Amino acid sequence: MVIVNDYYSQKNHGPYELYNIGDFELEEGGKIPECKLAYVTFGKLNELRDNTILMTTWYSGTSKIMEKYVGKGRALDPDKYFIVIVNQIGNGLSSSPHNTPDPYGMANFPRVRIGDDVRAQHKFLVEKFGIKEIALVVGGSMGAEQTWEWAVRYPDMVKRAAPIAGTAKTTPHDFLFAESLNEAIMSDPNWKNGNYKAASDVVEGLKRHAKIWAVMGWCTEFFKKESWREIGFSSVEEFMTGFMEPYFTVMDPNDLLNNAWKWQRGDVSRMYGGDLKKALGSIKAKVFVMPIDEDMFFTVKDCEYEQKMVPNSELRVIKSCGHLGLFAVQPDYLPQIDKNLRELLSIRV
Amino acid sequence: MVIVNDYYSQKNHGPYELYNIGDFELEEGGKIPECKLAYVTFGKLNELRDNTILMTTWYSGTSKIMEKYVGKGRALDPDKYFIVIVNQIGNGLSSSPHNTPDPYGMANFPRVRIGDDVRAQHKFLVEKFGIKEIALVVGGSMGAEQTWEWAVRYPDMVKRAAPIAGTAKTTPHDFLFAESLNEAIMSDPNWKNGNYKAASDVVEGLKRHAKIWAVMGWCTEFFKKESWREIGFSSVEEFMTGFMEPYFTVMDPNDLLNNAWKWQRGDVSRMYGGDLKKALGSIKAKVFVMPIDEDMFFTVKDCEYEQKMVPNSELRVIKSCGHLGLFAVQPDYLPQIDKNLRELLSIRV
Repeated sequence: MVIVNDYYSQKNHGPYELYNIGDFELEEGGKIPECKLAYVTFGKLNELRDNTILMTTWYSGTSKIMEKYVGKGRALDPDKYFIVIVNQIGNGLSSSPHNTPDPYGMANFPRVRIGDDVRAQHKFLVEKFGIKEIALVVGGSMGAEQTWEWAVRYPDMVKRAAPIAGTAKTTPHDFLFAESLNEAIMSDPNWKNGNYKAASDVVEGLKRHAKIWAVMGWCTEFFKKESWREIGFSSVEEFMTGFMEPYFTVMDPNDLLNNAWKWQRGDVSRMYGGDLKKALGSIKAKVFVMPIDEDMFFTVKDCEYEQKMVPNSELRVIKSCGHLGLFAVQPDYLPQIDKNLRELLSIRV
Repeated sequence: MVIVNDYYSQKNHGPYELYNIGDFELEEGGKIPECKLAYVTFGKLNELRDNTILMTTWYSGTSKIMEKYVGKGRALDPDKYFIVIVNQIGNGLSSSPHNTPDPYGMANFPRVRIGDDVRAQHKFLVEKFGIKEIALVVGGSMGAEQTWEWAVRYPDMVKRAAPIAGTAKTTPHDFLFAESLNEAIMSDPNWKNGNYKAASDVVEGLKRHAKIWAVMGWCTEFFKKESWREIGFSSVEEFMTGFMEPYFTVMDPNDLLNNAWKWQRGDVSRMYGGDLKKALGSIKAKVFVMPIDEDMFFTVKDCEYEQKMVPNSELRVIKSCGHLGLFAVQPDYLPQIDKNLRELLSIRV
């Protein structure tokens, strides 16, 4: 059954286009028939076909929010680069549980890995645009997981990589955190093992899920300094009911669960028989590893641990109010990202 | 209805004694009839009656675990001090939702504040032992909240105070975290608004609650370093099903919820019309503020912020694996506590 969910519409997240990569075989077995990737582009591919920037998406995110990271005169400048933002599989815009017809939709939608996404994105970029070289892959959180996977899987193609607030291999703590999010949704009796009739049936589970996100997504200082005032709220309650809850309760529960499953199992070492050092050591790209200082689950420590295994890399810590600083709600966030990406893009590789 | 719950028995948590402070009026209105405080003592009250150490308890904790902090030749030495550990109201040993008869039990048990506990403990110590001076009040987490309350409420009586991993005023982030724990329990359909027949009916909610505790209670390094091996487990799954879940699922849901409500509203500034600076400034005790370095909800930053408002105080950061380092499962934890408490007790006040 395909669920109609206006949240993922062109009106809310467009304009975006769809590219059909055909039946797509998955690492865990099974396939997505007529797998569609939703994408957006800015700028033009140059003659040398070497000015592509690939942007990936995070859990709950789509290409729409990534557009905040793009702009004329900024680091990701469409006047200079051909910028392609690809929505990850299962995020609601690309092929996802809620929009895939029977017998592959909803609870029957197969499990997808970060590696599947990156292979799908590769196929798309090569087939559709004939791209052989990527100047920069950049993404946050699960988008960083995809960025890492790109750098390890296609070392000759990826020239630069900037994983923001995300690891190459999901940590056990991070896994547990995602599990607590999943359980908040699945414990709602109306979730019915994924066979609900409308996302709104699962609103209570989605609200609890939003609460846990508030706890782990924003740092303690965000609440202490009442930083929610900066985004227009006058109390924590109002911030919860006016921002965190409405943000998540419109989303599709199965889509979120599918992406969380993928998030929990991000692991580039799979390509090297479980050897993380070897996997990260194989990267040829110039990498800026960009954790957020107050991030509680993709911690600076965890990101630095990985960065040290990457030959041509630097640690660039971003100051922000926790993992959800990614949303760029604080005015000093994007300037830091831009500064680092501008520098990274200026490095000859 | 009184619920029989063997977890809170003398066998598991004793020997402990009960002291009946009579009908006890509460700050939020209502009363606990024949309110009983469960307590344990070690050592003897000296003739000057000035060698009392009061130990308080945390959320989910009882006097039993606090006994780990006491020992001959250690800082809290029963050969030198008269050590009294008082179980907080609602913790399952003292008067609590599950052990209080109708019409005050279970869902009808009244809301209790930190201030109520401290007034009840004061009444108990004065009536039962004639204590007029306390050499040290020490407790962790909610026990720290009680410690802070003691220092502000009875400034002439408390000579030294050591709040470990807890604040004088609960932060908004901490409030949200506790709320996510509450919701994990209350979302279990078998909780039935507090009218379940046995704690085990609510096992699914309690398990989800345990999961969130694992995420926020232990730091990322605890999982990365596989520190659960130190306490005898061979995988994260085993640690969850063999430690975190069994720890919480035997407890009474209403007792936990009652204590969480109290935790969320700890605030010594209530005694000074909301002026936290004035409240903390009124403390006469010598105070060692002892946050745990990797604590994710009673953060060092939040504890230091308060410490700076206390005239005769020092910040002593304890190194451990997150808030649940309080459980003293890591061998280097208690030595740090002992070292600091020994020094604090040696200071003339």
